Amino acid sequence: MRHALGIDVGGTKIYSAVIDENGQIISDIEKHQTPKTFEDIKATFIQIIKKHEKDVDVIAFSTCGAVNNENTGIVGSTGNIAKEYPTMNFQSLSNKPVFVENDANCAAWAEYRIGASKGTKVSVMITLGTGVGGGIIINNTLLKGQNGAAGEMHFKMSMDKHRKCTCGSWDCFEIYASGKGLKITAEEMLENKDVTTYDVVEGVQKCNPKMREILEKWQTDIANGLIGLANIFDPDCIVLSGSMAEFVDTDFVENIVNSEICTTPTKIVKAQAGNYSGMIGAALLGLAKV
Amino acid sequence: MRHALGIDVGGTKIYSAVIDENGQIISDIEKHQTPKTFEDIKATFIQIIKKHEKDVDVIAFSTCGAVNNENTGIVGSTGNIAKEYPTMNFQSLSNKPVFVENDANCAAWAEYRIGASKGTKVSVMITLGTGVGGGIIINNTLLKGQNGAAGEMHFKMSMDKHRKCTCGSWDCFEIYASGKGLKITAEEMLENKDVTTYDVVEGVQKCNPKMREILEKWQTDIANGLIGLANIFDPDCIVLSGSMAEFVDTDFVENIVNSEICTTPTKIVKAQAGNYSGMIGAALLGLAKV
Repeated sequence: MRHALGIDVGGTKIYSAVIDENGQIISDIEKHQTPKTFEDIKATFIQIIKKHEKDVDVIAFSTCGAVNNENTGIVGSTGNIAKEYPTMNFQSLSNKPVFVENDANCAAWAEYRIGASKGTKVSVMITLGTGVGGGIIINNTLLKGQNGAAGEMHFKMSMDKHRKCTCGSWDCFEIYASGKGLKITAEEMLENKDVTTYDVVEGVQKCNPKMREILEKWQTDIANGLIGLANIFDPDCIVLSGSMAEFVDTDFVENIVNSEICTTPTKIVKAQAGNYSGMIGAALLGLAKV
Repeated sequence: MRHALGIDVGGTKIYSAVIDENGQIISDIEKHQTPKTFEDIKATFIQIIKKHEKDVDVIAFSTCGAVNNENTGIVGSTGNIAKEYPTMNFQSLSNKPVFVENDANCAAWAEYRIGASKGTKVSVMITLGTGVGGGIIINNTLLKGQNGAAGEMHFKMSMDKHRKCTCGSWDCFEIYASGKGLKITAEEMLENKDVTTYDVVEGVQKCNPKMREILEKWQTDIANGLIGLANIFDPDCIVLSGSMAEFVDTDFVENIVNSEICTTPTKIVKAQAGNYSGMIGAALLGLAKV
């Protein structure tokens, strides 16, 4: 059986492991803090690769940032990581084939191959974390777009400039559906700038009705965004992943979505491929390509 | 060279013509009013088909309503046409192969094969008419979804329930970007229920500044919707077709879109495949399938 070295690169952590063709992690999982500088990130990559490259068929990166259609490098900027990072020449890091894909796309692929969207024709995966990511799979292929940047979940939920989004625009789905979105919803409904997402979650656990109302508003906003995606893609399912997904009542959201769409009923489900789905998806995509 | 009988079925008119593999119309174009009853619609189809079926390789319908992934029949309801119409057994109408596809999808395909999006990898076509239709082409394939209903341009532009949409939901792109959307924008900005889209268009031609402001608001709403589509699909281009497209300043819209997206710059262009693009697209799709 062939193997990949999966490397998941985020703004704060780098994870790596050896993964087989079935998406099984067959080594220890290594964790590094993401270094602050380009040179130190590169050195970390080389250190990880040196250790495992003789045992694998491909080095597969799951990375923050949009990745080109050749799966060789990053398109555009990447937020909270060394600003020269997008210029990384990934192939130069190893003599083995190197494959690169966007982290949300990788996670979506892992869900499709071994997780919640297995066997579907059209699936949309949404990562609800500090921000919101997206990966769309149509007929066994990731939606990449003209330059690899597709799947950005920045569509407007309002035209009234209520909330400035991290992307620089206003009122994108991300700034409502993310953890940051939940915090802003809580701030608005409580008229208190100091409330945190943790306060909301803890309040709900303690049956605080106001906190429940806030969480419900946040989920309704998510549903309002998913209605659009369901009408555009007519997907078999929409998979919710990421750290905030656990606070979503998928039945509640699915009921709203299916009562408002003009396409055919879809399923809202939680991710099942686990915390290392990025790394696993990268490995499976990389192995399919070499 | 092979030929198709293209039949374009709308709520008010039925057009038909013989079309070749290059998308050229090689017969007269027949026009019928769309009959009120299912039986009369069927009789009209049979009359059209009888006349041409011996000369063609496929009967290709471009129809209102979502069409299944087998291209044999309609999924769900279809608005202002006989309510039994979606139950039509299209194949029973002829001994030649019969192909059916949604009209916006057909028009998008015509643009892709012989029009404004020729040679692109990812294109989104938006039909701006009384309502709004959509057709999305990714890597030489129409986006159909799990059941064929994909491409519905019903994503929310607001969560405040400003405008009831024809689909039964609220504040969809359609109810802002359509001709009806322009009328509502004019009603709101003039506080006058009697204003028509014609009044706006005529006012702009006569350099009425208020009418110009209304038309600009309508185009800004269109741009706000296209930002989301550009972020989701990272398309080479977005094609605007339909009767209302002529009132759109594509440079104005493209500038707004490209200044707000977080993907890569796209082009906003007008349709070039002409008024019979539905019929032509159906013919080209049908010929490719038989």
